[in-house]
Amino acid sequence: MSKSPAAAKRGIPSKENFKEWYPFIVETAELVDKRYPIKGMDVWRPYGWKTMRLIDNLTHEEMERTNHEEVNFPLLIPDDLLDKENKLVSLLKKAREAGVDPSELRLEDEAEGFAKEVYWIKHAGETKLDKPMFLRPTSETAMYTMFPLWIRSHADLPLKTYQIVNTFRYETKQTRSFIRVREIHFFEAHTAHIDEQDATRQINEDLEIVKNLMNDLNFPVLVTKRPVWDTFPGAWYTIAIDVIMPDGRTLQVASVHHYRDQWAKAFDIKYESESGGQKYVHQTTYGMSERLLGATVATHGDDKGLIMPPSIAPIQVVVIPILSKEGSEEIVSAAEEIVKTLKSERIRVKLDNRDIRPGQKYYDWEIKGVPLRIELGPRDLKSNSYMCARRTGEKCSYSLGDLVNSVKKELDSVNEHMKEAANTHFNKHIKQMPSIEIVGSNISIETNLEDGFVYEMPFEGNDAQAELIENETGFSFLGESTTPYSKERKCLVTGKYTINRIFLAKTY
Amino acid sequence: MSKSPAAAKRGIPSKENFKEWYPFIVETAELVDKRYPIKGMDVWRPYGWKTMRLIDNLTHEEMERTNHEEVNFPLLIPDDLLDKENKLVSLLKKAREAGVDPSELRLEDEAEGFAKEVYWIKHAGETKLDKPMFLRPTSETAMYTMFPLWIRSHADLPLKTYQIVNTFRYETKQTRSFIRVREIHFFEAHTAHIDEQDATRQINEDLEIVKNLMNDLNFPVLVTKRPVWDTFPGAWYTIAIDVIMPDGRTLQVASVHHYRDQWAKAFDIKYESESGGQKYVHQTTYGMSERLLGATVATHGDDKGLIMPPSIAPIQVVVIPILSKEGSEEIVSAAEEIVKTLKSERIRVKLDNRDIRPGQKYYDWEIKGVPLRIELGPRDLKSNSYMCARRTGEKCSYSLGDLVNSVKKELDSVNEHMKEAANTHFNKHIKQMPSIEIVGSNISIETNLEDGFVYEMPFEGNDAQAELIENETGFSFLGESTTPYSKERKCLVTGKYTINRIFLAKTY
Repeated sequence: MSKSPAAAKRGIPSKENFKEWYPFIVETAELVDKRYPIKGMDVWRPYGWKTMRLIDNLTHEEMERTNHEEVNFPLLIPDDLLDKENKLVSLLKKAREAGVDPSELRLEDEAEGFAKEVYWIKHAGETKLDKPMFLRPTSETAMYTMFPLWIRSHADLPLKTYQIVNTFRYETKQTRSFIRVREIHFFEAHTAHIDEQDATRQINEDLEIVKNLMNDLNFPVLVTKRPVWDTFPGAWYTIAIDVIMPDGRTLQVASVHHYRDQWAKAFDIKYESESGGQKYVHQTTYGMSERLLGATVATHGDDKGLIMPPSIAPIQVVVIPILSKEGSEEIVSAAEEIVKTLKSERIRVKLDNRDIRPGQKYYDWEIKGVPLRIELGPRDLKSNSYMCARRTGEKCSYSLGDLVNSVKKELDSVNEHMKEAANTHFNKHIKQMPSIEIVGSNISIETNLEDGFVYEMPFEGNDAQAELIENETGFSFLGESTTPYSKERKCLVTGKYTINRIFLAKTY
Repeated sequence: MSKSPAAAKRGIPSKENFKEWYPFIVETAELVDKRYPIKGMDVWRPYGWKTMRLIDNLTHEEMERTNHEEVNFPLLIPDDLLDKENKLVSLLKKAREAGVDPSELRLEDEAEGFAKEVYWIKHAGETKLDKPMFLRPTSETAMYTMFPLWIRSHADLPLKTYQIVNTFRYETKQTRSFIRVREIHFFEAHTAHIDEQDATRQINEDLEIVKNLMNDLNFPVLVTKRPVWDTFPGAWYTIAIDVIMPDGRTLQVASVHHYRDQWAKAFDIKYESESGGQKYVHQTTYGMSERLLGATVATHGDDKGLIMPPSIAPIQVVVIPILSKEGSEEIVSAAEEIVKTLKSERIRVKLDNRDIRPGQKYYDWEIKGVPLRIELGPRDLKSNSYMCARRTGEKCSYSLGDLVNSVKKELDSVNEHMKEAANTHFNKHIKQMPSIEIVGSNISIETNLEDGFVYEMPFEGNDAQAELIENETGFSFLGESTTPYSKERKCLVTGKYTINRIFLAKTY
């Protein structure tokens, strides 16, 4: 993709130079302002916030469709609630001593690591608090303190709650708008079920919701069951959703966790079963964040700026009157008529009647990624038509008599083009893993892996072999795809036949 | 109002005992759960949060209508940004030395008081921060740090921004759900204008928005210009909106502030005027909070529970099939048809098909204040009709053929009845101030003021006289009504004729 002269004039870095392009574009398109005096805490500008709220609306709709109820928990969590989480740790310790899943060993480190990642409140006013509190990094502790008060019997289950809130993480790594920030715009669903099976059903529902949302956002994702060493603490398993970014590194944009009854035991979340006895609930969580916007920007943008998926574009159509010396009034009033008609169809439309050259307007809306641009000049009006330019390329003339249908059709085309381009990028960035030979703890790989790509392979080896591969390649196991091979293939390490499809990547 | 036997059975305190009724009802109607282990930080339950979000939606609509743009600022504010606020303090100090408005004297105390009311973050992870930060109590400091970066010329003005966010206040007084809490669901609009006049226009627009919202919520308010000693720090003047609560005390639910260019001078917010010179902007703010919900609960509720204004009722209509031994299927499917029809008209409707007695269902939805209840039994169905019970009283039968119209009409009736009742309460709780005699610093008042009432009087006396009245009565000056007397009346203190209408009240 070569840079357009106009783009160059405006100083947009080429997207090939993603590291420069991304921070430039999020500010130039006025999604956020990074000049707020705390690193990793951006100010959401109106255009960015509107986009995020439209993403949230898609989420709200999915939550409503699936009978989740929205709650809102306090931001602050008293330090002593962590005791229960520590109880979980010690429960898992015992499990380990009884010889259980190695994933659970890591929980202790996590619990220690946790204290390193939160903002602490130890003072209020001029008082030193008896009980320190911290800003939620996520809400398990807060919510599971209340769940026992809300769940009494099987009739209270499933309990399906969610919230969209600000969460906090004291990031020490380099921050990046939407991708790695210290105040996170966060979605979290927390559910409780009568048994493991019903919780598994919830996981499947979550994955269906993910699919719908990713379809709305026009990008393909990798869905993998994370390896045990990358499973969320206290989870039985974690399924994560990753986007392949322009530089070939993957970005986790969502994750779902099946907790079984591990947290329930720590927080004493029980119910009276139909047969009368007390049972622990089985729980799941599902998290997403503003990274969805980061992935949208990264996936779809080009050298001219953003390209917004119509589903979340704050402005889906911009109408630009091309004024001539005569008949300007008619053009403006025809443009206003177009806006009125599209608005009545709930299309998000804006009239740009600023007193600047049309070319300048085109550039401005291109940077902001408005999917469709309607141009209306004297010749168009004479022929009762309008010109429709897609942000994904190409212009068409349509009859004004067919305005609504043609605009809807064009928005569909933008969706198609976006999906096509994103899928092409996606497929181009997945390579087959070269041959691997492991003898004891010696490993040799046929060719070096290339940065900028995700690798896939049939694999049914053990964790030790996986670790060898990670160390040798510098790539991480994303995990086992939820879409296995349709036919068995030879495991690159053991030679046994398997349908397990493993993805490896460098990650954000 | 005598307590219904059903209500008594459920243990609802009489509303006459407002102190017990209010906390009982907010929990029993499942608006919030107060059992979260931090005082003054409730958990919003689904029903309460949905109501709050519907109130927010009304606000969003008004903001959109008036071309405000939504932003979202970081929660954390670095301590050193306060330096600029201190600059404001010292500017005002100088003004005072030059002999200016006494309101400004109080700013120093405020600046000191401020540190007493915020939550401090001095630690993150295991690090003691070089730069302490605090949780926003409100966002002037954060926003006005960014405004100079956004405002360059007159073309950038007016800048009209708002956000709906969580804010924090370390309350040491007794907390009360929605009314006095430590994490506040807060709306704040911040605008910048070319001059004082344009800022004044904004204040008028804000008051129009207040009027629309209060109309949606069905309650009357007192709108007064606060006395100078109760003006927001740094404001030229403050107009506050108060509700008269059931106990006759007033609750401030909104306030608007005209800042002139005082903050702009402290934060150096300038623009290039059309004539070329640099000028300071004039600013306004407009704040509201979850108190709107608190006032809604308090104003409209009765001994049976909440009464929700249709505009913000999460469920506007509940449909209850009255099953008989025969024909239950037909009734259920007719009830489902009603739900479908009303939904298609964007009416928020719920079918209650739980397997419990209808009477039990009535009580449940009465407590939650659902405006309309549709009952559908075999006899109704036979006559192609349904029974509609208003939460404000009375039942009517309507033809199912006229479902949508009759439901809309009934919702209007509920609005009317709610307004009528609220206005009656309001008017009944405003009394005329008895005669006052002030000689020097001696004051005598004809009769003692009664708790449980707001007092009004014509007044054009001075601040010292006002203070005497406050001290003698224990009532506070709310301020001067924005609706003055239509004819001049004699000031109770000076005897001079004036149209100034002053309200005094005991306040929350």
